[in-house]
Amino acid sequence: MEKRLPFTPEQARAWTREFPTPFYIYHEAGIRRCVEGVKEAFAWNPGFREYFAVKACPTPAILRLLQSLGCGADCASVSELELARRSGITGERIVFSSNETLPEEYQLALKLNAIINLDDLTQVDRLMEAAGAENFPVPEKICCRYNPGQFQMTSDIMGHLYDSKYGMPKNQLMEAMKKLKAWGVREFGIHAMLQSCSLEEIYYPKLAGELFALAVEIQQQLGIRLSFIDLSGGIGIPYRPEEKPVDISAIGEGVRQVYEEILTPAGLFPALCTEMGRYITGPYGFLMAKVVGHKHIYKEYVGIDASACDHMRPAMYGAYHHITVLGKEGQQTHPVDVVGALCENNDKFAVDRPLPETEIGDLVVIHDSGAHCRSMGYNYNGRTRCGEYLLREDGSLKMIRRAETLQDLFATFDVDPEFCVRGEEI
Amino acid sequence: MEKRLPFTPEQARAWTREFPTPFYIYHEAGIRRCVEGVKEAFAWNPGFREYFAVKACPTPAILRLLQSLGCGADCASVSELELARRSGITGERIVFSSNETLPEEYQLALKLNAIINLDDLTQVDRLMEAAGAENFPVPEKICCRYNPGQFQMTSDIMGHLYDSKYGMPKNQLMEAMKKLKAWGVREFGIHAMLQSCSLEEIYYPKLAGELFALAVEIQQQLGIRLSFIDLSGGIGIPYRPEEKPVDISAIGEGVRQVYEEILTPAGLFPALCTEMGRYITGPYGFLMAKVVGHKHIYKEYVGIDASACDHMRPAMYGAYHHITVLGKEGQQTHPVDVVGALCENNDKFAVDRPLPETEIGDLVVIHDSGAHCRSMGYNYNGRTRCGEYLLREDGSLKMIRRAETLQDLFATFDVDPEFCVRGEEI
Repeated sequence: MEKRLPFTPEQARAWTREFPTPFYIYHEAGIRRCVEGVKEAFAWNPGFREYFAVKACPTPAILRLLQSLGCGADCASVSELELARRSGITGERIVFSSNETLPEEYQLALKLNAIINLDDLTQVDRLMEAAGAENFPVPEKICCRYNPGQFQMTSDIMGHLYDSKYGMPKNQLMEAMKKLKAWGVREFGIHAMLQSCSLEEIYYPKLAGELFALAVEIQQQLGIRLSFIDLSGGIGIPYRPEEKPVDISAIGEGVRQVYEEILTPAGLFPALCTEMGRYITGPYGFLMAKVVGHKHIYKEYVGIDASACDHMRPAMYGAYHHITVLGKEGQQTHPVDVVGALCENNDKFAVDRPLPETEIGDLVVIHDSGAHCRSMGYNYNGRTRCGEYLLREDGSLKMIRRAETLQDLFATFDVDPEFCVRGEEI
Repeated sequence: MEKRLPFTPEQARAWTREFPTPFYIYHEAGIRRCVEGVKEAFAWNPGFREYFAVKACPTPAILRLLQSLGCGADCASVSELELARRSGITGERIVFSSNETLPEEYQLALKLNAIINLDDLTQVDRLMEAAGAENFPVPEKICCRYNPGQFQMTSDIMGHLYDSKYGMPKNQLMEAMKKLKAWGVREFGIHAMLQSCSLEEIYYPKLAGELFALAVEIQQQLGIRLSFIDLSGGIGIPYRPEEKPVDISAIGEGVRQVYEEILTPAGLFPALCTEMGRYITGPYGFLMAKVVGHKHIYKEYVGIDASACDHMRPAMYGAYHHITVLGKEGQQTHPVDVVGALCENNDKFAVDRPLPETEIGDLVVIHDSGAHCRSMGYNYNGRTRCGEYLLREDGSLKMIRRAETLQDLFATFDVDPEFCVRGEEI
């Protein structure tokens, strides 16, 4: 079974003659259509906004594209806040969702007028101290992150969240809101993320049911009418070719029904937001690599010029990413391990994967690499991380991030006068 | 049970007043004593050399220290070769041990006169092509990497290596040597790594038995008298306080006995080498961090200002690293999860770890962080990686690598004119 690509083998060959592999390609039209689908699915909710999870693909050109499509940014650190700001996403279009947060992180979020999503009751005092230390006014709007401890998806599927480090139990969330209200905060939201990479269309409606019921309870107990409810991320993508993508309009409709069931009768009309990352860019990113070696030992190995340094999900999570050998689609396959060059035995893009016979120089495409892939790269074995290109709607390829060089890799040794960073190359 | 530290809580507090946490400290005297122990253990073998595995701690000041102690370098990439060269380690003091190797990687190794350790039979042609393309002379000395497929440690413990991507089976290794000899190579070595982080003192002697028997077979079949045998790495360190460090002199003596049993009677006297990384620097590196938060939800959490971006072993491997709360040694403990700030639920330095009650600002030390820790850092969530200091024999602390800045993090966006990398800070 094959997965579709937004380019032909001939196009890819032409690109790799111009730009050395490995590199990422992001498909602009695919991302655009995906965002449009999300917006349509939630168009029934007037205040709806998607806050793209920056950690999924923290590249300015991608953030600017999403900004132009009306998305906000979900940021988790100072540098993600800076990336959002420099990509034209500001103010209420930023949600700052962090944990173990430092005063300077809160201060930058306050300076940017971002919506702060508080992870814990103990963070209320930390935020107040951070704001006070720099004479920031009380923020208008704050979000609190909920962790219900457990989560019933269907009668069969029960998720335990006891070992999730995020969010607050209900009583602490109520307590946090009371304190924030007393401090002077006027608008509130709640947030929860109870699944990751879920392909079950029931997930958002079920999560919405939890959060909407909590919204009613908050109104009853605290007299606070929530202005917004953040469903966060968690919507999955079909990494395997036999999996089906979710029907986002069915998900939007499912959430609408729960909204009308729970919130409308209570006279509550909060805006909804989502923080999808994987769903927005995941399927529209492709890691392009070349076959550089074959080993025939106790198993068959195909070596490629990308490694876990460029793309860590298979090494860290054992994650499946589909692989196409360009131009050999449909040929007879046999099982191989597809490996990178790291001296680290988990540097395997695939284990026992049926692939066509390859030759040195064949191009391989690692699918669904648009989220949490380049952003999770590392420099183990002193390997530099690869660059990124945008495949624009006019069919041209534009470099949006260059590959790292040895100079980048050695940059932090510039404090060591005996290490000649800019010294002669051999 | 506690682990010993080479500094006092007072010293550490003074340092963290001067340098913001998190940062690494490497203990120069500890590394020096460790290398001396290794050299003594193998002093009976005149040509013995330790080739430090650069990937464990690729920092020039550490490499220069090791160079001054007579160590060579085990390198796996162009940048590791460059690091070794710029740290004064050249020629035969470098072993280049790579896989899925590119022509330019072989060419740099040849230029440096490094000893190439060939991973696979198919690489013989690749190396010959790479050398020919740039008119390099035939290298004098080459090593071949062996993978026996399985490995008997004791009558109970049998390691399967069928899914290890490294090395060649015996028949392929023989074939590779034949081809290399015909090409004009005059001196040969063999290499194998069949365990990782082993605390069993029998490992090196057992491995030596395999390799020495192979050396005799090589002499009988090919008429090649090996000049050296590389036992590679694999010697472990006691990450847990209840574990005991290996007795390196007993290991050296065990190898000597096998040498005299197998090689001496065959009239073979190869030099031995090792490629320890973890054993040399692992126990002498400490990640210093501060407590920045507490959460009391379904579990108790202690948040620190370091994350998996600084130190990935717990997140990637679930690895145990001992944690000391400085100045609270011996106090009553209760179980907590020690977590970093990443939006990634595996960002936990410890789960259910008994620790004393902590306060915000308490200093924690993450032990045994001298190998495969800073070198495995990543930038997920846009987090910058921390710096490194050398604790010198005179008790002073010297910065040997600075922390990354946002400018480092954004450096590869300089191809994007719309992203103002050096633009005004907010």
